[in-house]
Amino acid sequence: MANATAAKRRAGNEIEFSRIGAFSDGVFAIAITLLVLNLNVPQHLHGESLGSALWAQRDDLFAYAISFAVIGRFWLIHHGFFGQVTGFDGRLIGLNLFYLAWIVLLPFSSRVLGDHGGAEAAVVLYAVNLTAVILAGRLMFDHARRAGLSTISAEEARDARLGALLVAGVFLVSIPVAFLNAQIAPYCWLALFLAPLAGRAVGVRRS
Amino acid sequence: MANATAAKRRAGNEIEFSRIGAFSDGVFAIAITLLVLNLNVPQHLHGESLGSALWAQRDDLFAYAISFAVIGRFWLIHHGFFGQVTGFDGRLIGLNLFYLAWIVLLPFSSRVLGDHGGAEAAVVLYAVNLTAVILAGRLMFDHARRAGLSTISAEEARDARLGALLVAGVFLVSIPVAFLNAQIAPYCWLALFLAPLAGRAVGVRRS
Amino acid sequence: MANATAAKRRAGNEIEFSRIGAFSDGVFAIAITLLVLNLNVPQHLHGESLGSALWAQRDDLFAYAISFAVIGRFWLIHHGFFGQVTGFDGRLIGLNLFYLAWIVLLPFSSRVLGDHGGAEAAVVLYAVNLTAVILAGRLMFDHARRAGLSTISAEEARDARLGALLVAGVFLVSIPVAFLNAQIAPYCWLALFLAPLAGRAVGVRRS
Amino acid sequence: MANATAAKRRAGNEIEFSRIGAFSDGVFAIAITLLVLNLNVPQHLHGESLGSALWAQRDDLFAYAISFAVIGRFWLIHHGFFGQVTGFDGRLIGLNLFYLAWIVLLPFSSRVLGDHGGAEAAVVLYAVNLTAVILAGRLMFDHARRAGLSTISAEEARDARLGALLVAGVFLVSIPVAFLNAQIAPYCWLALFLAPLAGRAVGVRRS
Repeated sequence: MANATAAKRRAGNEIEFSRIGAFSDGVFAIAITLLVLNLNVPQHLHGESLGSALWAQRDDLFAYAISFAVIGRFWLIHHGFFGQVTGFDGRLIGLNLFYLAWIVLLPFSSRVLGDHGGAEAAVVLYAVNLTAVILAGRLMFDHARRAGLSTISAEEARDARLGALLVAGVFLVSIPVAFLNAQIAPYCWLALFLAPLAGRAVGVRRS
Repeated sequence: MANATAAKRRAGNEIEFSRIGAFSDGVFAIAITLLVLNLNVPQHLHGESLGSALWAQRDDLFAYAISFAVIGRFWLIHHGFFGQVTGFDGRLIGLNLFYLAWIVLLPFSSRVLGDHGGAEAAVVLYAVNLTAVILAGRLMFDHARRAGLSTISAEEARDARLGALLVAGVFLVSIPVAFLNAQIAPYCWLALFLAPLAGRAVGVRRS
Repeated sequence: MANATAAKRRAGNEIEFSRIGAFSDGVFAIAITLLVLNLNVPQHLHGESLGSALWAQRDDLFAYAISFAVIGRFWLIHHGFFGQVTGFDGRLIGLNLFYLAWIVLLPFSSRVLGDHGGAEAAVVLYAVNLTAVILAGRLMFDHARRAGLSTISAEEARDARLGALLVAGVFLVSIPVAFLNAQIAPYCWLALFLAPLAGRAVGVRRS
Repeated sequence: MANATAAKRRAGNEIEFSRIGAFSDGVFAIAITLLVLNLNVPQHLHGESLGSALWAQRDDLFAYAISFAVIGRFWLIHHGFFGQVTGFDGRLIGLNLFYLAWIVLLPFSSRVLGDHGGAEAAVVLYAVNLTAVILAGRLMFDHARRAGLSTISAEEARDARLGALLVAGVFLVSIPVAFLNAQIAPYCWLALFLAPLAGRAVGVRRS
């Protein structure tokens, strides 16, 4: 309580809390929607049919699906975190912007991956981007807890950390796989689609 | 009621309900606005006038109008659905993201249609994308009702389903037409513009 | 009052009012921001300096400034209108989407104008787009008043109409000018920048 | 007080205050996210590896980081200002749109800088754009105070001005540096990243 009051006071003439969340939501919504611009519309068909030209872009569509799931998942984690925050200081706002800067980079990394799925550098760039998101999120979460700006319980903090590590783990494992066979590495990431099901199983057991 | 309470409890440290709606609204607003990027600005006029170069893009403008009406209609349906939802669980959030992933794909399908209006593959891609939106919406609606997360009455559920089927029907009919004559198929979709008038007629009779 | 209640009832299971405004705001914000994508970054400098390459784009910057002022002005008018609306029916929502479809087209018309400022077709396209916005706005405003969905007074309605006609007038005058000299026509539009000053003078007199 | 009431009255049938903030937030969120479109995805690798092609774009990534920090900082300043505003008149709304027009231009200036980092014109354009943002912000802030539309105290106004001048100072210093060595000039801007730390130090001393 004293902490929350201190945070409020510290906030002083700073910006309203709910608006930071709304701004972050806007950035997430735009970043996830810009993914569609990564899909190239076939322009010059040199004898091939449009159908086969579209089929040739299945890597792009795969990168689109993966990145949509990834950004959507980070949005959920970020949103859940903000639901527990009771105040903010300048450093937390700065760390949130730092976090969003890595989120906004994801459509770029996703496009490189879609256009150069067979190159190690594309897989590594994507994995590095995601690790940076998770690291920035850790910095933000941990600062909020240390500064007494969060009501998050130890159990909930562990759950959030587990969710983040799940995504990070899948991607870190894919980096050595990329150097063995860059074509196969991204398919490791399909494991991410199983995560919601896993989360649901946990939810059922909990209630 | 017990179900709704369970859902609330299950939601626990999850994200605030209204924010899911705001995020979805943002994605819809961006997707519908990105449609304008599908219109190519004539750059190099090889002897022809700008007026005729613009006129040559009437297919793009037609795809723009159709897609604006389609995304606008889905937004209305989605929004009406969220007005009836009383709670949420992880699966509903996941299904909502799955639904939005297909919505965000629409500007891409729309651009393919505008650039290759005469190809069967373009018409089929567009119709498949729309069918996927409707199917994902069905999954989301039905899960909300089965999990007791929605106050939607049987009558209202039927209305929503009818609206979705109306759009789906128009597009499914256009697929065989596309294989007969791909140029004509998209003109079937003009029927969509009559739907609001139909809806209004229903409204008048109801009140 | 009876009208407003009827409207509420008619709205029934439709979507929440404030969300239509938020969605419209989002579309306006995105459309106005997409204007920046119309500015071409010089890529290949064939001997010329970057400074002169940027200076060669002053038409694009001019179109950017005009369109930012135009969309900003329409946002103000639209927003003021929504502040007076007490309810909505399906037709008003449909007319709002129709209105937004013309707003979203403005970045396209603006780009054509920036890239082909010297062509009559570019000036005519822009003027036609604006006239369509104003016409769609008229349809929307008039329906709201006729259906008893608006508390707008006769005086306020006249003010809103005057504001719209001011913009429309400037553009309609520029069409014949365009056929005399398309280079000069867009400079007529600078008159729009005087409008806020005019509006302020009116405000001072009123208070 | 009398002033604030006058402002409220003058506002009359104008638009709701909170919506101006939401619209501005949306514009900021989109402008900051569009920065990612400035990063070029290597398309045709002429013998070089993807990794070295990505490394060749480190100037683009540098411009992305700088611009993200700059727009984020302006968003904070703008947001803090709106938290102090008690009313608005047509001129304040117009000045806000004028301010946003310069914010939306930043992704363009940022792209020119990323693609032509070694040219004086690119550095000057960027610095001019930022100076324009700061000047427009000054006009807006000062009008709000003179019109009695702001509760901002003299001390807080000084803090806001200092923050703006800090950014302006860093950029103005970089213009003469650009004419000595355009490659080095942007590195002056790294000083901006130290600003949040400075702000935090101030915060600690204050509480």
